[in-house]
Amino acid sequence: MYLGIDLGGTNIKVGLFDDQLNSVDELWRPTQSETNSITVVSNLTNAIQELLIRNQVRQSMLQAIGIGVPGLLDIAAGISKFSPNFANWADVPIKHIFEEQFHVPVFIDNDVRVNLYGEWQRGVGIDQTNLLMVTLGTGMGSGIVVDGHVLYGATTSAGEIGHMNMYRHGRPCACGSSGCLGRYVSGRGIVKTAQEKLAAGFTSIVAEWTNNQPAQITAKMLSEADDQHDQMAHAVWQETGELLGYGLANAINLYNPAILIIGGGVANAGERLLVPMKRSIHQHGLKIAVAACQIETAKLGDRAGMIGAAIVAQRRLNKSSK
Amino acid sequence: MYLGIDLGGTNIKVGLFDDQLNSVDELWRPTQSETNSITVVSNLTNAIQELLIRNQVRQSMLQAIGIGVPGLLDIAAGISKFSPNFANWADVPIKHIFEEQFHVPVFIDNDVRVNLYGEWQRGVGIDQTNLLMVTLGTGMGSGIVVDGHVLYGATTSAGEIGHMNMYRHGRPCACGSSGCLGRYVSGRGIVKTAQEKLAAGFTSIVAEWTNNQPAQITAKMLSEADDQHDQMAHAVWQETGELLGYGLANAINLYNPAILIIGGGVANAGERLLVPMKRSIHQHGLKIAVAACQIETAKLGDRAGMIGAAIVAQRRLNKSSK
Repeated sequence: MYLGIDLGGTNIKVGLFDDQLNSVDELWRPTQSETNSITVVSNLTNAIQELLIRNQVRQSMLQAIGIGVPGLLDIAAGISKFSPNFANWADVPIKHIFEEQFHVPVFIDNDVRVNLYGEWQRGVGIDQTNLLMVTLGTGMGSGIVVDGHVLYGATTSAGEIGHMNMYRHGRPCACGSSGCLGRYVSGRGIVKTAQEKLAAGFTSIVAEWTNNQPAQITAKMLSEADDQHDQMAHAVWQETGELLGYGLANAINLYNPAILIIGGGVANAGERLLVPMKRSIHQHGLKIAVAACQIETAKLGDRAGMIGAAIVAQRRLNKSSK
Repeated sequence: MYLGIDLGGTNIKVGLFDDQLNSVDELWRPTQSETNSITVVSNLTNAIQELLIRNQVRQSMLQAIGIGVPGLLDIAAGISKFSPNFANWADVPIKHIFEEQFHVPVFIDNDVRVNLYGEWQRGVGIDQTNLLMVTLGTGMGSGIVVDGHVLYGATTSAGEIGHMNMYRHGRPCACGSSGCLGRYVSGRGIVKTAQEKLAAGFTSIVAEWTNNQPAQITAKMLSEADDQHDQMAHAVWQETGELLGYGLANAINLYNPAILIIGGGVANAGERLLVPMKRSIHQHGLKIAVAACQIETAKLGDRAGMIGAAIVAQRRLNKSSK
């Protein structure tokens, strides 16, 4: 059996899978990422033990554990070096800690890539050999398969689409540059666009809803306002979709995927985002590459990470035993 | 023995290689790409025969022929579908024609990718597993190796970096979009930038040199003017290098190469282009990815295509016989 774990900023999701990677059981617990690495590691240990006990699975029955971790990793060493949404968290030796604890091989990979593995092998990307999965949440990330190979790169950071420069002198980004795509099309970026419009004098129902406190605006609120035909909210989604389309056209030109999978919470905005996005992709991507690329939303949702982490565990275990 | 052929818009370059892919002899002939496909194919046949005869190589001694072809290809079928710089040229069945003629397996690949194979296996990229090769000539292209695999993609067009959108409403491009990177940093793009500056009232020694006929300006002329401390020419190279750096920072963020190889005729501009380019890459690329990426100019020059085409022939032959 395998454990596939999605270590998110909000929830720890632990899935138990049989040797064919069919789901047996799963369990979600709060991460408490605002605390520190000891607490988070302890929460994860407890969640694993609870799931094993209630399914009467002994450690010796486990083949391997796969863990999807956000932020900067040393994948080979199994170390989480830095994670922007985790407090008091630096160089956490995930692999070492859990191998000591459970006496089975532990493999880590980044959160977007485990989502990609899940959607590729068990979701909307089944049978494809060229995939681009883009997640739009608080931030923006991507995972890529080209010619059947998942891209890692020299420092395992291939796919940093959120830092694609779109404007020479745009919004400042934590990366040290400015005008990065993620600063406009992530959940935070979309809210920022709405805030800028309100500051520029546009009127909107979201100003009422938030008692003129722009810091209270959420992306979900902008979807609800758009449903009520709010013109500012509509403009925000149109502009966001268009810019996202330009960025994804660039990614399609560079990776040449047969399927583009849009996932993450922001994808829930649906057609209001996807229609202008697709229009922009078709207008600005290379004709042949775009024609060869179907565009889909992710299918597995919140569960892709667990499944993908179990897939990573199985693949890496097989590779290491060869 | 292998033949490695670089079918360029100006020259047909045919190289003869032994089974270890050491160069035995080579021969260059004019392509006459302004004529038609029958003439070009006949020129190529004659060049091959001349090289074989003068080295006393019988057809039966050849293992395979590799041909690098510019433009749009069906690599599997061995068909050159369209090539922007070749007149009267459509759906030319290269593989079929030369297999009939020489009775050995023939493999084609695109011109940038054969250059990449050459620099990777025999040039500045030896021993690397993550490479990005960018060629700056009349146009702009790239070839990529990630985790030891050369990227092809769904329609074998991965790496179309020249069509990365940099400006929402920039210079129109033949691809149907506008603001594409190649429209600014290719040989033609650089000349266009100079022409725009002259039209805007800048003065420059190149105006004298061309008797105020901006259509006569070349990229080489702009290098010579810069050598003579021409301010307009200097500004053109600075701006070009900076924008190229932004585009390459994006590519580094997406592919995460350990080495970025700059090739093509425009790379001969040297430091005047590379210094602002590197500065821009360092300012705008992700710190870890940029730190992991050495930047080099291509080493094999005009010969990379022949060598790379021979490598393609050998690799594809070995793959097909397994």
